Formats: sequence, C-alpha cells, structure tokens
Amino acid sequence: MVKPFLSERMQGIERTLLRQINDQADSSCINLGLGEPSFPTPKSILNHLKQKVEDWNLGYSPNEGIQKLRKLIAEKSGLEVAADQICVTVGAEEALFTALMVIMNSGDEALIPNPGFPAYESIVKIAGGIAKSYQLYRENNFSLKYEHVKKNITKKTKAIILNSPNNPSGAVYSSEELMKLAKLLEKRSIIAISDEVYRDIYFEERPDSIANYVRNYLVVNSLSKSYSMTGWRLGWCIAPPELSKPLANFHQLAVACAPKISQKVALFALKGFAEKEKMHNIEELRRRRDLAMSCVEKYTDLEYVKPSGTFYMFIDVLSKIPKYGNSLEISLSLLSKEKVVTIPGLAFGKGGEGYLRISFASPPEQIEEGIRRIGHFFGVRPRKLQ
Amino acid sequence: MVKPFLSERMQGIERTLLRQINDQADSSCINLGLGEPSFPTPKSILNHLKQKVEDWNLGYSPNEGIQKLRKLIAEKSGLEVAADQICVTVGAEEALFTALMVIMNSGDEALIPNPGFPAYESIVKIAGGIAKSYQLYRENNFSLKYEHVKKNITKKTKAIILNSPNNPSGAVYSSEELMKLAKLLEKRSIIAISDEVYRDIYFEERPDSIANYVRNYLVVNSLSKSYSMTGWRLGWCIAPPELSKPLANFHQLAVACAPKISQKVALFALKGFAEKEKMHNIEELRRRRDLAMSCVEKYTDLEYVKPSGTFYMFIDVLSKIPKYGNSLEISLSLLSKEKVVTIPGLAFGKGGEGYLRISFASPPEQIEEGIRRIGHFFGVRPRKLQ
Repeated sequence: MVKPFLSERMQGIERTLLRQINDQADSSCINLGLGEPSFPTPKSILNHLKQKVEDWNLGYSPNEGIQKLRKLIAEKSGLEVAADQICVTVGAEEALFTALMVIMNSGDEALIPNPGFPAYESIVKIAGGIAKSYQLYRENNFSLKYEHVKKNITKKTKAIILNSPNNPSGAVYSSEELMKLAKLLEKRSIIAISDEVYRDIYFEERPDSIANYVRNYLVVNSLSKSYSMTGWRLGWCIAPPELSKPLANFHQLAVACAPKISQKVALFALKGFAEKEKMHNIEELRRRRDLAMSCVEKYTDLEYVKPSGTFYMFIDVLSKIPKYGNSLEISLSLLSKEKVVTIPGLAFGKGGEGYLRISFASPPEQIEEGIRRIGHFFGVRPRKLQ
Repeated sequence: MVKPFLSERMQGIERTLLRQINDQADSSCINLGLGEPSFPTPKSILNHLKQKVEDWNLGYSPNEGIQKLRKLIAEKSGLEVAADQICVTVGAEEALFTALMVIMNSGDEALIPNPGFPAYESIVKIAGGIAKSYQLYRENNFSLKYEHVKKNITKKTKAIILNSPNNPSGAVYSSEELMKLAKLLEKRSIIAISDEVYRDIYFEERPDSIANYVRNYLVVNSLSKSYSMTGWRLGWCIAPPELSKPLANFHQLAVACAPKISQKVALFALKGFAEKEKMHNIEELRRRRDLAMSCVEKYTDLEYVKPSGTFYMFIDVLSKIPKYGNSLEISLSLLSKEKVVTIPGLAFGKGGEGYLRISFASPPEQIEEGIRRIGHFFGVRPRKLQ
C-alpha cells in the first residue's frame, strides 16, 4: 500500500496484555484470568425474556435508551439526577469511551490509576489525551490516597478516572480520601470519571462514590459484573446536564443505541426481579474469595492483598522475580508449564509489577486447583492449615 | 463551569435533522420518516432464541465476535476474505464509526455522497477528517457518476463512502460506474468504504459492490434492514488484512464486543433459517413501494424518483418551495398541519434540497393515508388512476 492506512490515533494501540494472555489459553487450562463471573444470566431474567420476547418491539430504541429505563437508572443511582442525564450504552466500556471522547482534547491530561484497568490508558490516547498515572501503593492496600493524586494534577488535567472497587487489586477507596480529593477537583474544575462496575461486589462496607461529593462527574456502570451479564452489553453513563446531550449525540454516531433486548431485560432486572440471584451470586463470590485466600495460604508461600470488593486478588510474587523473571515472565511460565492462566501485574501498569492478578470468579474447584498449581510452580509443598 | 468541558471534536455536532424531526412526532402522527421496516423480528429467530437461550453462554464473546459467525459472514460476503478479516460490530453504525476512526487523520479528506446519510459527515468530523461531498444528481436518478467523484479527489483524499442502494433516494449504483471509479481509487490508494446495509433490499438487478473491484475496501453491513432487526445491534466490518487487527483493537476499546445474544441469533439467521421470512418481507417492501408510487400519482401532483432499492422514496417538492418554503419548512408544516412525518431532503445535505424522503417501510394503510395528507397539504384533489 502506498499510503499508511492506519490513523495516528491507533498507532501504538496494541491488543492489551490481558487479552494476549487470554488468547494463549486453551480450554485445557485452569483459567484464573477471567474478567467475568462464571455464573449464567439469572434464571428469572431468561424466563422473563422467554415469556415476553414476542410482545416486545425490538426495533431501534431512542438513541439515549428507553425512557423508562433511563428513569429507573436515575432513581437507583442514589444521586439527584434526572432521566435526561442518563445515556444507556453498550456496556460500561462504551460509556467510558464516550465519556472520554466527549471531553478530551488533544493535549489534555487524564489521571488514571496505576495499577488500573488497561483500557483507560488506551482510550485516553485514542481521545487525543495524555494519560498520566497516579500510583496506588501496596502499603495502602492499593487504596486511593489523596496526596498521590494531588501531586500529579497540572493545569492541563481535564479528568481523573476513579475505580472503586478497583480492578486489579480489589481495593475500595475510603470516603475520607474521596472527600478530600473532591474538594480539590471542584476547585480545579476537574471532571471525576467514576468507573463503578464493581460497586455492588463488596465484602465489607458498601463502597462510596466520588459522585456524592462533586458536581462534575461522569458515572460509568453496567449490569455486566453485578448481574453476571457481560455479554448483554448493557451499561450507562450518568452525566451533568451540560454534557448529557453531547454524550447522546456521540453515542448515536458510534453505535445508534444499546441493544433493545438487553434494555428490556435491564428494565426487569433493575426493578428488582433478579435481586435474589444477584445477592446469591455476590455471597458466592465472598465464599470464593475466602477460598482463594485460604488456598494461597495452604499451597503457596506468597503474600496477597485481601480484596474488599471485585472478584480479583493481587498475589505478591515480588520475591520470586530474581529467580523466575518479572510478572509477565512468571505468568507466561505458569501458562506453559502449569496450564494455569493468571494476569501479570504489569498488564495494569508499572505499579502492578511484582504481582499476579488471579480471578476468583471461576468455579471453586478451579480456584483451588489453579492456586495449587501456582504453589507447585514455585516448588512449595502444601501446608496444613489450622 | 470554569473550563469548557466539551471536546472540540463534539463542537458543532448536533442531533441530526432526521432525529430532530422524529423527536417532534408523536404517536398520533402518520410516520413516513422511519428508518426501519415495520416488520417484527422473524418468528423463526424468536423461536430459536426461546428454545436455546438457556443453553447459551451469554458472557463476553471474543472481541471480534464468535469465530463461527465471522467464518459464516466471510463465506456469505461473496468476497475472497478470511474469517480473520471480519469484525462483528454493534450494528453497521459502529462498523462505519470504527472504520473511519481507524483510518482518518486530522486533515484527511473523506468523500461522502450528497444527498447521503447524515451520520457520514458527523463521523468523519469526529474522526478529525474533512467531509467533502460528491453530488448525486436528479438527472441520473441520484445514481453514482464517476466524473462527479473524480473532480473532488485531491492529494488529501483518504477514503470515499459509497452507499448503494442509497439512502435517501433509493438509487442503485451501476457496475459500470463502480468499475470506472475502482480504477481511480486503486491508482490513488483511496480506501472505498462501502455501506451495504440496503444491499439485500432491491427491486431490479442485484446491486453490485465496489469491493468486487478494489483491493482496499471496508465493507459495512448488518442484519438491521435486511432482516428487520435494527434493535439487535448486529453488524460487521470486512477489512483488508492490514487493518483487521487495528479495527478489532479499536472495537474492543469502544464497546468490548457485540451483544452475544444477537451474535447467537445472527448465526442462525445467516445459516439461512430465516431466509423465507426475509424474502417475504422484501417482497412486501416491493408491494409497498408500488403502493407508494401509485399513491403519489393519485393524491399529489408531485414527481418522484422511482426507488431501485431501500425502502425510501424521494418526492420532488422543488416547485412548491416558492409558496411553501424549503424542504425543512415543508416537512415541519406537514408535521404540524397534517400530522405526517416526512424527512426534508436538506437533512441529507444541500443536494437533497427540493425533495422529501418518505419511507415505505410503514404499513400500507399508513403509506396511503400519509401520502393523501401530503396531497391535501398542497391543495391537490385526488385523481382517479386507470
């Protein structure tokens, strides 16, 4: 080809390490790399669908989503927002993507958590912005510290992405730190983008949201993780009134509207009809977390960060690096030698180096077998626990 | 707010005229503005869904789509392409959006049809490009003429969007003109973006595709119009090997993946199990087209462009402008005085001025009543047809 066909915005945008590792896994592997719960779509939702699908008009919805659904999302948000401020999106991914595309200009800075979800950096870059990371540190259990954000704020800072509970560490940010940060963001007119996809999956206190303390927020959420409905692609963005129309305009041009059938079942789910199964699944995730922790103690000599939310756990392989290589090398060796999928901390930024992310969204027997293999890889003999 | 929150790329991006008009319509209106057939999702597809949904894994699919579906789309495309060249998208809208975002740089020019689908211009602008239009003229029944494209090509031309059958005129581009254009595109390394969402809806010869004559194409298609499945948000983009990975990377960051349930039913539909209903619907659209043409002749004194495809017809109101105002003013008056929704030709660019787009995707009784009202608006008494 004579001209370079690829746009500049896509140069350097590679398949994320996270996806690359998962691509190398086959069905014979124990997969502790999953970003979704192993639970099926709640049965109540499938039953509702089977009963009603023939009565539904499955043509286009309004671009911003079915009005009743927008109203319900607004009511359930816990925020003082109107239905007009809700844009129903193709999962939280599109909500995040749309949010950044609608606010970021070339040269604007967005602060992203490190370690953090790898798409943040790529989307900021595609939107023309500069991704600057704020560190989350092990000594704080990877939770947010206001000071570590503050020192990265410049005149160019347009937005900050917050993600609590946090992928990959499972940390939940404290209300105290969020409040301190909120004051600064208000003063500097920085938009808080709050990725709350794991907010319903917590094992201690209910996670707070920065949106409770600032005027200028974009809240991103979905049914994906909380209802185990990742493939339904149903999320939403809550925007300040000034941004809700541009957000809908962008969304129209990018995807037209969210899938109608998913909007229909979302209406059913958010009315509370799948609540029992949702809560049951979250309780099961708590049991799996406890299992994962006890297995790490039993089968390995590794430390870990106790997750307060999400279905991820960060296990500490820092001491193994001199012998086994960095987290990516360890992860690849685990995959080839032990057939167990883990995600290297490096996939989440330099701040994740020295850790492996394991997912306890997998079935219990796989969690136990996977962690047993990790211990075996490092030459540890299983301990008897009290 | 202290800083302007809206990104530059979104400045000037307004809700399209097409959407604005539809927003003003209420359920008491006769709607000849619809961009989707009035048929429900094929019954065979809903039955399949009801039978199988509990067996399906409705978690994430691979970002690019279910492999079997990609293979089937490649096979059905009529092009020599591999499954790896297919990205399954959230309808054709996301396919088009992704295609442009992956190739356009700031300052690049993309040629768009005028009159044409209004999103083309907005997406090109969002992608940083400059939308330059090539005119489609009434004297050619709004079909493509190579010369009218050629004179708009410059050193900066990166891509051209082709849409045959064409929204809003229903024109089908001839193979002869496509072949002439193809030679020029090859010579100048210009990418042909072929929007083929109406390609299965034709009333004369099967529409050809520029992809048969060039190496560098991005074909955009979906189930939306051909299977009456607009709300399912299931489309695809066929890309040259050099662009298929970046396309998938962008798509991953924008939406993660297309809705899984829609991919599952697409697999069923494209295997041919909904073919009978699809063909039945297209035959019905032919009858509605014939009805629409005879109603325009019976109830109005207006000329029209006989549609060769799509479910749109362009009716000529040029002679009415001195008395009634431009196409937008006529459309708004029709809405307020006669309660009939039409789309002003202006919504599709200056080249559409002097026309109204009416959709014959609506039920027959609405087509007749809507056109009767248009005649009434212009003070025409119904004629008796032979």
